Amino acid sequence: MADAILPLGSDNRTALRRLVESLNLPRLEAGWVWLAGAGPGDPGLVALHTLSAIAEADVIFMDALVNRDLLTLARPDAEIVDSGKRGGKPSPTQDTISRRLILAARRGRKVLRLKGGDPFVFGRGGEEALALVQAGIPFRVVPGVTAGIGGLAYAGIPVTHRDVNQAVTFVTGSGVKGTAPDLDWHAIARGSPTIVLYMARRHAGAIAEKLIAAGRNPNEPAAIVSSASLEQQKTIVTTLAGLGEKAAQADTPAILVIGENVRLAEGLDWLGAARRGRKLDPDPLQRQRLSDAG
Amino acid sequence: MADAILPLGSDNRTALRRLVESLNLPRLEAGWVWLAGAGPGDPGLVALHTLSAIAEADVIFMDALVNRDLLTLARPDAEIVDSGKRGGKPSPTQDTISRRLILAARRGRKVLRLKGGDPFVFGRGGEEALALVQAGIPFRVVPGVTAGIGGLAYAGIPVTHRDVNQAVTFVTGSGVKGTAPDLDWHAIARGSPTIVLYMARRHAGAIAEKLIAAGRNPNEPAAIVSSASLEQQKTIVTTLAGLGEKAAQADTPAILVIGENVRLAEGLDWLGAARRGRKLDPDPLQRQRLSDAG
Repeated sequence: MADAILPLGSDNRTALRRLVESLNLPRLEAGWVWLAGAGPGDPGLVALHTLSAIAEADVIFMDALVNRDLLTLARPDAEIVDSGKRGGKPSPTQDTISRRLILAARRGRKVLRLKGGDPFVFGRGGEEALALVQAGIPFRVVPGVTAGIGGLAYAGIPVTHRDVNQAVTFVTGSGVKGTAPDLDWHAIARGSPTIVLYMARRHAGAIAEKLIAAGRNPNEPAAIVSSASLEQQKTIVTTLAGLGEKAAQADTPAILVIGENVRLAEGLDWLGAARRGRKLDPDPLQRQRLSDAG
Repeated sequence: MADAILPLGSDNRTALRRLVESLNLPRLEAGWVWLAGAGPGDPGLVALHTLSAIAEADVIFMDALVNRDLLTLARPDAEIVDSGKRGGKPSPTQDTISRRLILAARRGRKVLRLKGGDPFVFGRGGEEALALVQAGIPFRVVPGVTAGIGGLAYAGIPVTHRDVNQAVTFVTGSGVKGTAPDLDWHAIARGSPTIVLYMARRHAGAIAEKLIAAGRNPNEPAAIVSSASLEQQKTIVTTLAGLGEKAAQADTPAILVIGENVRLAEGLDWLGAARRGRKLDPDPLQRQRLSDAG
């Protein structure tokens, strides 16, 4: 068997199974679909349920943004199906993906559907799950770390911080062709000090204009984090007024954030500190007196 | 050694270390603090980095809401420090917790700080991290699944769903004594079809009143999910008008959600289907024509 030439993978699969058993967790069973989020990219952010399902699955339907390194945990005989939806390239439709999931489950296979981030955060997981319900296929949803929270954390930007914001709004810039999403941007501008934008590179300029028209300060900080949590992660810090231009130049995938929280990266960019020796500022907002434990 | 009487734990720690090495992931080192989110409760939602850190740590500072089952992975000689902050009970102050983290790291220990949910979502992780920066302690942030996304997913409520909402707002009801948080509720009401409330049991009634005054429909669906993702998980479905009264009766911890997304639970309550044989409705919004893969 192929296992013989992949002893490490085999050991890892056995170990994951034992770990799952020792914690009394369920395993992916024949005829079931697990709809799981793989997080922003770092395999270290993947949940135990999802790791376990990768190791168990007969077939894995992968989104384009899911880290391929995770497949080292898959069985050598597991079928891997690319189900990514990426702008410009031909990709299976949502209906096609749902049909394939249903067909695989009906054949009694252990089916894992792996999506980037979290399946229920602008991930169309609900639609896929409802198709399973209609077909009578049993399923489990495994949440993942969403890029708008975990990806920003890897750039040292907490989506909430005491004294900065008691609310944060997540918005998608996708799903609407040609123009920025049809939302009450005036209300969003005033309701939430911190705004996180998904899939919004193309409309970032238009969205920024609407927010400024609604009274947001054009000079307030904004950031674009590309390939968050991966080796090639890159952060561009700009202002709300500059967001559109910078976003157009940024690598994909990118998560955008607007708000004072961006300034916290000067203190909290732990990855920059670890990788490049970036010096961190313990008072990035220049207004806090921190207690000194020294 | 104690390992001899806990072979399974020891095996799991060895296995986790090998898994981490095979994926080229970092390990918690001496003198470092990892500030990690343990998710809403289900150990299966904990990220690989966090599992690995539990197995490596010399000392683990635990929040009250972190699932104790995870400690089966800790070394028998690891020190476990309860650092929970819970209303009513005496608990260490934020300053005390930060001081202890710094002291342990300075002693060259491998320090894990485990928080419920995600450390950067209303979790004060940024404050703890800035204290580490001030003390010159190297650290890593490990995001977790936040209850407002993953906890609701366990109740079958996706925080986003196409045709329902392109925006979702997360708000904390905590940090303000006596009254509901001082936010522009009128703007929040109009800006975001879906609103998720953290630590808001006490102010749920006041918040609901403000949202209704701002034009939200008193009959729109709302839900309270207690002990999300745990064995004792419980969902109460109500209306915006009924939210305050129901929230006051609900178990803690609880996450609250307002919006049409709540109705999706009739189709997506996969946990209810698995545990209690709940029949799921493939068209919970009664307006979608789903493609049939049958």
